[in-house]
Amino acid sequence: MKISELSRTTGVPVASIKYFRREGLLPAGRATAATLAEYGDEHVQRLRLIKALTTTGGLSIAAARDVLTAVDRSDSTDGTLKAISYALPVPVTQSPGADAEEETEAATAARADVAGLIAAMDWQVPDTSPHVQGLAVALQELRRLDADYRPERLVAYAELARSIARLDLERAAALEDSPSLAEQAVVVLALSGPMLELLRRLAQEDQVRRRTTFEDDDTPA
Amino acid sequence: MKISELSRTTGVPVASIKYFRREGLLPAGRATAATLAEYGDEHVQRLRLIKALTTTGGLSIAAARDVLTAVDRSDSTDGTLKAISYALPVPVTQSPGADAEEETEAATAARADVAGLIAAMDWQVPDTSPHVQGLAVALQELRRLDADYRPERLVAYAELARSIARLDLERAAALEDSPSLAEQAVVVLALSGPMLELLRRLAQEDQVRRRTTFEDDDTPA
Repeated sequence: MKISELSRTTGVPVASIKYFRREGLLPAGRATAATLAEYGDEHVQRLRLIKALTTTGGLSIAAARDVLTAVDRSDSTDGTLKAISYALPVPVTQSPGADAEEETEAATAARADVAGLIAAMDWQVPDTSPHVQGLAVALQELRRLDADYRPERLVAYAELARSIARLDLERAAALEDSPSLAEQAVVVLALSGPMLELLRRLAQEDQVRRRTTFEDDDTPA
Repeated sequence: MKISELSRTTGVPVASIKYFRREGLLPAGRATAATLAEYGDEHVQRLRLIKALTTTGGLSIAAARDVLTAVDRSDSTDGTLKAISYALPVPVTQSPGADAEEETEAATAARADVAGLIAAMDWQVPDTSPHVQGLAVALQELRRLDADYRPERLVAYAELARSIARLDLERAAALEDSPSLAEQAVVVLALSGPMLELLRRLAQEDQVRRRTTFEDDDTPA
């Protein structure tokens, strides 16, 4: 199909398709003339994935490119899962601290807490994992707000996270024979995050409502 | 303290403090002269919260202002929790669709799925909740990628989300008497999201590693 039809089929404007081409997110079409290219179903599928990553997944163009590069390079299910997992942006940013020495101490303490948690959970992850470092930053930021998560609370959260990861991976395992495994792995790893966050907020809302009656609400408490 | 000391204590540059004042995120100091103001501990605490929301929490300035307005207006624990919960940005964006009629049908189907899930879970949340609408968008986006979450899978995720929300709310309940309850509620509702996401990724990584041996890894599979 021509670029105009690719645009109609996916709902992505022609200018955006050209932008994704230039940025290396979308492979080239098959050249049929100096200024014409022919696109196929693989381009339709890739454009859907780019849209999903950058909207539902909330990734920047640069982060989406890293994830897609990982998808294109990997050649095994587990290699794909690991590559994608490492390419996803870590959802915390270290805020600048006031006192350099205090910050160093706080960072060391947070890293020790994470190491303790990983040992308690018997998780086989290297210290170099971006998620290990990300969790240490998150704990340091929470502690800065006097929102200390005691080890037993962290373990309780970690146990639930493990159950969720099992659900995620069950789904990935069921896709072993699918031709679009890598792309479905992106869905499992990146896009189920927002879904889970919304489910958590709904469950929080339900529990708050059960504790009280809101003015705008006829439901008994 | 003067603005320069407030800056040293919190690590927030003077220019940023002035910006947060102009944008309405930080209350005014007590004026001591035409161009001088005196700041107190409440400003230190508020600046820490602004930093946490906009870094760890990943909120925009506008979203952080909405959350802080909710914090300042509410006068009960549960009112605070609900106000903050509704002020948080919904972590999904609807991507533009190709065919308007198809999109309407898909949106209707996704809303029906969410209504079914809420009934199955016996969650007391109104249709007007931003989280109900956000979940419908997330499911519609996932389905667009042929990543259909069947009702029984959704219920399995929802059960785990309920357990997590119980942990979140236990923490909020323990803070009932704290002078900074509203601010701690922000921590519980907004900032534990990134922590949970990182725990989920670590658990995924552990499970993928247990399935295989990586080249860069000496751990037995």
